Amino acid sequence: MAEIRKAIDRAGHPALLMVDTISSLASTDYRHDEWGVDVTVGGAQKGLMLPPGMSFNAVSDKALAANKTSQLTKSFWAWDEMLTMNKVGFFPYTPATQMLQGLAVSIEMLHEEGLDNVFARHDRLAEATRRAIKTWGLDTICRDAKYYSPTITAVLLPEGHDADAFRALALEQFNISYGSSFGRFTGKMFRIGHLGDINDAMMLGGLAVTEMALALANIPHKKGGVQAAMDYLVSQHGRAAKQAAE
Amino acid sequence: MAEIRKAIDRAGHPALLMVDTISSLASTDYRHDEWGVDVTVGGAQKGLMLPPGMSFNAVSDKALAANKTSQLTKSFWAWDEMLTMNKVGFFPYTPATQMLQGLAVSIEMLHEEGLDNVFARHDRLAEATRRAIKTWGLDTICRDAKYYSPTITAVLLPEGHDADAFRALALEQFNISYGSSFGRFTGKMFRIGHLGDINDAMMLGGLAVTEMALALANIPHKKGGVQAAMDYLVSQHGRAAKQAAE
Amino acid sequence: MAEIRKAIDRAGHPALLMVDTISSLASTDYRHDEWGVDVTVGGAQKGLMLPPGMSFNAVSDKALAANKTSQLTKSFWAWDEMLTMNKVGFFPYTPATQMLQGLAVSIEMLHEEGLDNVFARHDRLAEATRRAIKTWGLDTICRDAKYYSPTITAVLLPEGHDADAFRALALEQFNISYGSSFGRFTGKMFRIGHLGDINDAMMLGGLAVTEMALALANIPHKKGGVQAAMDYLVSQHGRAAKQAAE
Amino acid sequence: MAEIRKAIDRAGHPALLMVDTISSLASTDYRHDEWGVDVTVGGAQKGLMLPPGMSFNAVSDKALAANKTSQLTKSFWAWDEMLTMNKVGFFPYTPATQMLQGLAVSIEMLHEEGLDNVFARHDRLAEATRRAIKTWGLDTICRDAKYYSPTITAVLLPEGHDADAFRALALEQFNISYGSSFGRFTGKMFRIGHLGDINDAMMLGGLAVTEMALALANIPHKKGGVQAAMDYLVSQHGRAAKQAAE
Repeated sequence: MAEIRKAIDRAGHPALLMVDTISSLASTDYRHDEWGVDVTVGGAQKGLMLPPGMSFNAVSDKALAANKTSQLTKSFWAWDEMLTMNKVGFFPYTPATQMLQGLAVSIEMLHEEGLDNVFARHDRLAEATRRAIKTWGLDTICRDAKYYSPTITAVLLPEGHDADAFRALALEQFNISYGSSFGRFTGKMFRIGHLGDINDAMMLGGLAVTEMALALANIPHKKGGVQAAMDYLVSQHGRAAKQAAE
Repeated sequence: MAEIRKAIDRAGHPALLMVDTISSLASTDYRHDEWGVDVTVGGAQKGLMLPPGMSFNAVSDKALAANKTSQLTKSFWAWDEMLTMNKVGFFPYTPATQMLQGLAVSIEMLHEEGLDNVFARHDRLAEATRRAIKTWGLDTICRDAKYYSPTITAVLLPEGHDADAFRALALEQFNISYGSSFGRFTGKMFRIGHLGDINDAMMLGGLAVTEMALALANIPHKKGGVQAAMDYLVSQHGRAAKQAAE
Repeated sequence: MAEIRKAIDRAGHPALLMVDTISSLASTDYRHDEWGVDVTVGGAQKGLMLPPGMSFNAVSDKALAANKTSQLTKSFWAWDEMLTMNKVGFFPYTPATQMLQGLAVSIEMLHEEGLDNVFARHDRLAEATRRAIKTWGLDTICRDAKYYSPTITAVLLPEGHDADAFRALALEQFNISYGSSFGRFTGKMFRIGHLGDINDAMMLGGLAVTEMALALANIPHKKGGVQAAMDYLVSQHGRAAKQAAE
Repeated sequence: MAEIRKAIDRAGHPALLMVDTISSLASTDYRHDEWGVDVTVGGAQKGLMLPPGMSFNAVSDKALAANKTSQLTKSFWAWDEMLTMNKVGFFPYTPATQMLQGLAVSIEMLHEEGLDNVFARHDRLAEATRRAIKTWGLDTICRDAKYYSPTITAVLLPEGHDADAFRALALEQFNISYGSSFGRFTGKMFRIGHLGDINDAMMLGGLAVTEMALALANIPHKKGGVQAAMDYLVSQHGRAAKQAAE
């Protein structure tokens, strides 16, 4: 993001930089001010570990200034009333009170664990997931390790295998629900989420039934994905314990 | 149980037969009337999937008659008031109302799945657990397959390894809590529960972090336990799918 | 609403009729199709008795047609994706799943009571509230009985008394929160909500502490408001019992 | 209680003093150690504001000593195992974990309000209740003001009126549930609870529908009970505000 900002600035372009952090906020490092983002959109239901039902914005001074003179019809982006009322602790319309109370608890939980630990946990479970997929002999959508996501990994099925049928079988047999495929990958991939209130046991349980669903769906793959994920996680925990002991 | 009853009867002994079903009710077949049990004690917090806080009795006519003439001081076993009030839908003292409402939902869930399916699920996950343990090269307390429990399996650690230290490490590292050791096995075993609201993903997640905890605790074992459990579960699901298709 | 529709039609005007039912839906009779409404906006947090966090639209064919050719920028009103996905039981984006499950229960509760009974209950509690206010010698905003709201009643304070200070006192002393004042009535009124999951005891408790707060705030008023509300409610319950007996 | 203790001591009697605090704990002052009580029995579901499902004991050294040599069969009173395990933070059997977590929150709430304020609130609502009953022209069971309960008040109905029929009518019409009658007052009284998580609005709402139910049940009484309760509560709040201002 910081690089995009710099590129915009270098080009002397007046564009505002808007970032969708719904699937990443509180799961990986993100810096609205420091990176010069103008509008950040966040949501409650991923890294913040709440039910769906609340979204929010962080807005730069530059975006506020642009908002004042903009001729666009606005609804979500009409921040004036919200900013005025928020200053005295209220909302212009009925706020999602339960969600706000839940958010206070989520933030407390995140700080109790420590944001660095939260981010490290996401990185660790993401890498474990990729190692399982690689062991199965399957591909992920993302081809450049630089852009691996710490929160979601999309798995490509071999030519001739329907990802939606696979998702339906896994849901039916193991009560596991993957992110659906879309766009040019419709029917070709399923997405494994590894974010929010998740730990090693949940992740490995999810990978285990995924490996089992691949078998039941007769999708060509090699066994051992869960074992590879476990080996990696043991090595990371062992390393952490060693460092703590030194 | 039925055999114990028959043995008592064959001996012409007047003893009442009392059965503690706390860790088995709704997880495996049980027949109070048919097996001639006199007093059954059940609880909410295991197979009935509720928080702890409620216990109950089933009582035979023979036990009620014995109760009337018994000279023992009674408290829990003083059923008279309860039986009188229950007939008109009330309790002699404050009942655990929330638990009773939860119990209605639990029973609905059990019947939705079907009791036979519930029992088969427990047997399947118990066998998967035993296969993992066997692959690790560890022993269980129960030496006769006839008495394997469908709800809990106690794992013996090799001589010289402290089970309580192992449980503490697993809790700290993986947030998993095993049943404690006691009696002559104090410090020598930990117990894996596999009952109630549990499915393949939860069970395999639990076995995976157990295998990882064995590694981190430097307890001699062979890897592959989770793989063995998965192989067994895939074979069972595949068999069930095949039977359904026939 | 039906009259507005007819007036629009008589004038031969092509305007769409849009109705905000957030504070009335499920509390009073409303007929989207029958009354010829084009767009109805509803919310979960009032008559539907849920926490805030979900809103929805009912849309006429005429509105859908207009939507297709409209040049306005749309966000909430871009129904296409939603309609397409809803047909197969899904949502284009993450839906507020918990709210939808709650909604199913709310609707079940409303039908269990019976919609006619729900509406009659709202009318009854609204009239009881107005009788209390009249007895206190205070005015409501609504001057024409034809337009009395079955869900909310705005109370005007006498000249020289600050409604916001009154609301703060009542919140502090009695933990009761009224709707705030706004527009040209800012600081002059407070609003009593009487809708959703509310019964006689809750309503009378709320009126009682309101009467007490008027006393503690030294706002000129006559006592007896709660008594007037009770007298009215007794007469209505007595009448209903009599009718049921006939 | 302290007086009973002193009387026992004066008589030189070895009896243990056991106190049932289920309906009073955390609603009125109580001092196990200071008053020389030997065994206190408490429960979660009244002043501690939790669902039913947990009970506990406080035990004096004298009771523990008696327990060691006692020949009675014991179950609840067999404290040894509990005391041993509690020392290391555990329970001998499955504890009601959710209740314990709820208890931590209850205790936090009580201290946030301040125990003196909690007790004063109970006294205030109890007196308001008695004033309502007196205004109705009805009697309470307790004839000596010295023994008025701060948590429950039993109302006698006039000769010839069935208290159980009255309770059924109030439950049906107003969804209010009173404590039942028993012993020699069976069918002659109903009991109003005013304890736990209760404030002026709840209490007055309850008294209001009680006054209405008396009318609907054609039980001879005078109106104005709720008004009397309100007048008393206003005077107390006004006095507290005045004291705070001085």
